[in-house]
Amino acid sequence: MSLTFALPPAAQVGQPADTIDTPSLVLDLDVFERNVARMQAAADQAGVKLRPHAKAHKCPDIALAQMARGAVGICCQKVSEAVPFVRAGVQDIHISNEIAGPAKAKLLAELARHARLSVCVDDLRQIDALAAATQAAGTTLDVFIEVDIGQGRCGVADGAAALPLVACIAAHPQLRLRGLQAYHGGIQHLRGWTERRDAAARAADRTGSAIARLEAAGVRCEVVTGGGSGSVEFDLGSGVYTEIQPGSYVFMDADYGSNAYTGALRFEHGLFIATAVMSVAAGDRAVVDAGLKSMAVDSGLPWIWNEGAPSATLGYVAANDEHGIVRPKREGDVAALPALGSRMMLVPGHCDPTLNLYDELVGIRGGTVAAIWPVAARGLSR
Amino acid sequence: MSLTFALPPAAQVGQPADTIDTPSLVLDLDVFERNVARMQAAADQAGVKLRPHAKAHKCPDIALAQMARGAVGICCQKVSEAVPFVRAGVQDIHISNEIAGPAKAKLLAELARHARLSVCVDDLRQIDALAAATQAAGTTLDVFIEVDIGQGRCGVADGAAALPLVACIAAHPQLRLRGLQAYHGGIQHLRGWTERRDAAARAADRTGSAIARLEAAGVRCEVVTGGGSGSVEFDLGSGVYTEIQPGSYVFMDADYGSNAYTGALRFEHGLFIATAVMSVAAGDRAVVDAGLKSMAVDSGLPWIWNEGAPSATLGYVAANDEHGIVRPKREGDVAALPALGSRMMLVPGHCDPTLNLYDELVGIRGGTVAAIWPVAARGLSR
Repeated sequence: MSLTFALPPAAQVGQPADTIDTPSLVLDLDVFERNVARMQAAADQAGVKLRPHAKAHKCPDIALAQMARGAVGICCQKVSEAVPFVRAGVQDIHISNEIAGPAKAKLLAELARHARLSVCVDDLRQIDALAAATQAAGTTLDVFIEVDIGQGRCGVADGAAALPLVACIAAHPQLRLRGLQAYHGGIQHLRGWTERRDAAARAADRTGSAIARLEAAGVRCEVVTGGGSGSVEFDLGSGVYTEIQPGSYVFMDADYGSNAYTGALRFEHGLFIATAVMSVAAGDRAVVDAGLKSMAVDSGLPWIWNEGAPSATLGYVAANDEHGIVRPKREGDVAALPALGSRMMLVPGHCDPTLNLYDELVGIRGGTVAAIWPVAARGLSR
Repeated sequence: MSLTFALPPAAQVGQPADTIDTPSLVLDLDVFERNVARMQAAADQAGVKLRPHAKAHKCPDIALAQMARGAVGICCQKVSEAVPFVRAGVQDIHISNEIAGPAKAKLLAELARHARLSVCVDDLRQIDALAAATQAAGTTLDVFIEVDIGQGRCGVADGAAALPLVACIAAHPQLRLRGLQAYHGGIQHLRGWTERRDAAARAADRTGSAIARLEAAGVRCEVVTGGGSGSVEFDLGSGVYTEIQPGSYVFMDADYGSNAYTGALRFEHGLFIATAVMSVAAGDRAVVDAGLKSMAVDSGLPWIWNEGAPSATLGYVAANDEHGIVRPKREGDVAALPALGSRMMLVPGHCDPTLNLYDELVGIRGGTVAAIWPVAARGLSR
């Protein structure tokens, strides 16, 4: 075999969208731009800064588009994830997470030579590790204390529990306390609008209490960061967040699409898996070429998209590693089944881990491939 | 930012295994070699050829190790997946799947210049596409007719339904009918040993009937390929398969580990996710740095490994995108919780899609990193 034998690309700019090789990850660029603009306008109107979460897209082209619209920077969830964004020129990155181990603290401290970086803490020992790494690197870091506002994952319990961390950060001149992170992931996926509104209000109350407790101790929280795509309309009006960090709104997925929205702030589905029918031999189902290795199913199976809405006649009912099973929604309605070789667009159940499966995102506009964007932080989970 | 800023590697050969950066995908090479040898010995003893499935590992180093032990070639599930294996020198690859669309047929026909390749069909139109592509490329392909032996996914219903495909293949001199593929994925994960044995026997009966029907029509099946890691002891003794195609046995995962095995042919867990505790602030749980982007959870959550067995005291109870939640198995047993920064090894629920998340596999032996193997076919799902 010739060592120069190259796999042909899945898509090239200018090619008709319905000839993209399958399975591929496809983004409708018009929808994407509307989603980006809508979130920025809502944040601007509320006087709250927008720092979109790059863990959803892992794509520097998207981060730069968000910042060109007015985002103040981005969030990453892992230190290694930040590297391609710094390399692409993003100058302000918040690691919205605690980090474990000296290797990560060292990398973060070294990255801080090239961009403004911040990170979360919820334990004195994490602060010690950051202090040692920044001292060794000769750099400075912004630090956020994470407060648990109901998720029960990371974060100190309340404002009082944050006070020893405040004192510890203050003891290290190369660390600067920037404020609080207060995020509740579980709220994002509550289906009912009033249920989500009420849960977001309870979470904002806890955030407000933590801020007040710190202020009573003379500690000012310059930045309070949190919020997500499912709760953003409530987060923006809560009065406690100075900065929101939604991620999935640029794409929307079937899980977020299953939420009820009654407010004015809505986002459109723009992310798809292009797939093709590879077998119809069984007669009562079609087998498509996108399975578990082409989309995350942890939040449910994908929707089959049909002219702007989930298909009324066909359902994607099971995913194997490399196969998807498509059946008629009405039993026995085999006339609805797609033909061998025909194509469909799937809305993935959960966008973040789906992006993490692909090396590139195929941008389409008006039925034509208009961009190929590297998912440069794919797999960077350290 | 300097464009030459490079992310440090997760591990380097010679480094202590307990200093590998987290999360990382780790393979115990001694276990791996025992698993490879054990499967080869069982196939040799049964007089059945072993063609391991590379969809499980996507790693040319592993394929070459399997072939050095006696495997006759490998299976891939996708045409693009085969490219790095052909490039690494694997000369005999079976695409154990139907393919959709002219781009894939073209790639397959062009790859056939560099290695012996075969592919499955279950529809006359697939044969037409292969005939056109091989004619254009000036190459030849081996073709297998897939028979559905109970899975209800791809494949013709029985031997009679295969006959029109036999005639169609015979009409194209550049295509050669090699035999039948008969695989039932669902059997692999039946938990009870007798349940699995009986289901494998029913599937083998259907395979045998298809072979007999073709023989009655004067069609000889030179190769009958099928079987998997969960059914292999039955497949080898069934008398119908000339070749088996198990994949997961090299690693084993929590799902396969949940099967009951009473026979002599057993495989050991050798694949792990190294993870570290990043937060203990909640007090009643530990948060580790490996979540949905570091392992597939479609077949269940990972086991926490402790001295060769699932931990009796700790469970990994929930996965978020970048977080895992670890709780004591006995309620309130917080003394069992791991310390901040401590490390653990997880046995992933499902190995195939977990491998598809990582660019490299860190091989360890005797507590030291002994190899870094690229997962070269990661993400190649077209």
